[in-house]
Amino acid sequence: MADPATTPPLTRASVLAAHSLIKPYIHETPVLTNTTLDQLASTPRTPEELKGTEWEGVEKPANPKIRFWFKCENFQRIGAFKARGAFHAVERLKKEEGLEGLRRTGVVTHSSGNHAQALSLAARENGIPAYIVMPNISPPPKIAATRGYGANITFSGSTSTEREAVTKEVIEKTGARFVPPYDHPDIILGQGTAALELQSQVAASLSTSGNATNRRLNAVITPCGGGGLLSGTALACSDPSAQGGPILVFGAEPSFSGADDGRRGYYSGTRVESVKSLTIADGLRTPVGTHPWSIIYERKLVAGMYSVGEEEIKKALRLVYQRMKVVVEPSAVVGLAVALYNEEFRSMVEREAGEEGWDLGVMFSGGNVELAALGTLFGEVVW
Amino acid sequence: MADPATTPPLTRASVLAAHSLIKPYIHETPVLTNTTLDQLASTPRTPEELKGTEWEGVEKPANPKIRFWFKCENFQRIGAFKARGAFHAVERLKKEEGLEGLRRTGVVTHSSGNHAQALSLAARENGIPAYIVMPNISPPPKIAATRGYGANITFSGSTSTEREAVTKEVIEKTGARFVPPYDHPDIILGQGTAALELQSQVAASLSTSGNATNRRLNAVITPCGGGGLLSGTALACSDPSAQGGPILVFGAEPSFSGADDGRRGYYSGTRVESVKSLTIADGLRTPVGTHPWSIIYERKLVAGMYSVGEEEIKKALRLVYQRMKVVVEPSAVVGLAVALYNEEFRSMVEREAGEEGWDLGVMFSGGNVELAALGTLFGEVVW
Repeated sequence: MADPATTPPLTRASVLAAHSLIKPYIHETPVLTNTTLDQLASTPRTPEELKGTEWEGVEKPANPKIRFWFKCENFQRIGAFKARGAFHAVERLKKEEGLEGLRRTGVVTHSSGNHAQALSLAARENGIPAYIVMPNISPPPKIAATRGYGANITFSGSTSTEREAVTKEVIEKTGARFVPPYDHPDIILGQGTAALELQSQVAASLSTSGNATNRRLNAVITPCGGGGLLSGTALACSDPSAQGGPILVFGAEPSFSGADDGRRGYYSGTRVESVKSLTIADGLRTPVGTHPWSIIYERKLVAGMYSVGEEEIKKALRLVYQRMKVVVEPSAVVGLAVALYNEEFRSMVEREAGEEGWDLGVMFSGGNVELAALGTLFGEVVW
Repeated sequence: MADPATTPPLTRASVLAAHSLIKPYIHETPVLTNTTLDQLASTPRTPEELKGTEWEGVEKPANPKIRFWFKCENFQRIGAFKARGAFHAVERLKKEEGLEGLRRTGVVTHSSGNHAQALSLAARENGIPAYIVMPNISPPPKIAATRGYGANITFSGSTSTEREAVTKEVIEKTGARFVPPYDHPDIILGQGTAALELQSQVAASLSTSGNATNRRLNAVITPCGGGGLLSGTALACSDPSAQGGPILVFGAEPSFSGADDGRRGYYSGTRVESVKSLTIADGLRTPVGTHPWSIIYERKLVAGMYSVGEEEIKKALRLVYQRMKVVVEPSAVVGLAVALYNEEFRSMVEREAGEEGWDLGVMFSGGNVELAALGTLFGEVVW
């Protein structure tokens, strides 16, 4: 990774600078709205719906007003926001080392998911070799996809000790620069660029729609795994001079088997350092990294953390496929699931937003889903 | 249905008139492009890929140049282009009978699919009762979806005699006006409006992209079931004064178990009157209607008909989910499958379009797919 001594400060200005560096390489992904989902979010849940949840029997279910703005990073290159961080990390390494130097040595990471593909793509477009260390138990389609971007794949055991040992060997042999998936300022600044685009896209849309009101993007909710996207979003929204006040940023996690490490850490004051969860939101199985943590918790740039169960994630996923007709991965809809099904979040919105309601940005983080697994997820029915 | 004596002539001008009638009710759906699919379509298929197909062993696989423009009617209201025809039919009945009269009598159709939902929606928005006759073996989600639009559902047996008898009973009891799914001029003119939008959207996109060349929409391929969308598209593209010559229109069908009735009729000169196919493209299991046939075959406004097998449809479907991240139903991708996998079509494009290639519109007709069936379609894998 780039020398920490040379990394830009973790500020909104640095996210803006990152955006101008990576703009030629990434898509400005579309922002979608959906009347049906707005109505659903703006209707109190019924006692029947709350049965079996921790809010069973509450007297007055929350009645927030929510207008969604979905930032569709599932349409981003490689199918996820990770392209932003990877392209930014490579641009920064090019500045530090020179393109020719980087072409001799290459870049390396260990990942079996979207980051592996993102780094491979960013390297290939610059003529730089990419070395990817993958667990030997990785699903064949993921291996094939990463190889499809021209990466050199080395297999390792699946524990973190094993993969780090193999990564070290690759670095010793090639001199490749390490690009971590989330725990680095350059990655965080890159991921934050999605929220910058969201801000200007919502503003443009509200101004052309002739809304004479004071409507603006009030808040953004993003999924939280390692925390790169969440902390980058928090930086991008941390403009103290913004008209109408700051844009609040919230993190969303699965609650299943401890994947809500960010939420637990946030409310206990101590970062949770390891997670072993098999949530269907497979992009969110990692603990929050130290750099993201400094932004999320220490600098309090994130206003709150919320979690939802596996059934709520599946329900939100089904709604997105049925009503919006876009392909997203389970991790991508955790923020939407919080807005639809978490009474604590919904009460807070009702309280904070009042009669006017909120224009709420939702990060659809990616769309790389195993198609063959969709049936299992949605339940089996003969065609 | 509206009195045939009062229906507008089947011309492009009437499609334009239909468009101005229904514009307040429908979405102008987006047009998407995709570099990966363009590259795939513009690369000759390998001998291995052709193995086991009727083109196995051909010496020189076709090498066309194709740039796709996908008209996304999966994002249309009710998730399919059928909303266009239904809203147009209702507007025309309103003109003929008056809104008050229609509110007393209502509209009726027999359908278990997209047309049922489309007519129910068009009726509801006008405060008109909708009566839908559905086979009693219809899948519960389709029944629920139609009921969700406020329709009155009557069940019938599943043969055409049975459902027509029940429809007649409903008409006798209520005086409701019958709105058929495809075999009526008003429906055809409504469906044609998607191609009008496609034409202006492609033109706008090419002019802002600064393409100084003579590029324009050269051809459109649409799925063909009852032929409403195909014949409407043919009318919309039949402008003899268009710059650069007419836009060619092609029909695409599944070849499985006789679903290619349109193609067989087109090349034999006799309309095929009945189809019994269980192709996965379940929207295309109907024979071409008489009014569409008059446009497609008798007036020769369709330049050719092509078909593809079930495996090709599944491959195209998988590509759209993986590469474009949009949810489409199997019927929607049959045109894309022809462009990617039918050597006869591909050779024709190579011959007609030459070095410059074609800008080819592809109608993504709808996105109403049983989510639980996707796993079966894409093959089973544990999550």
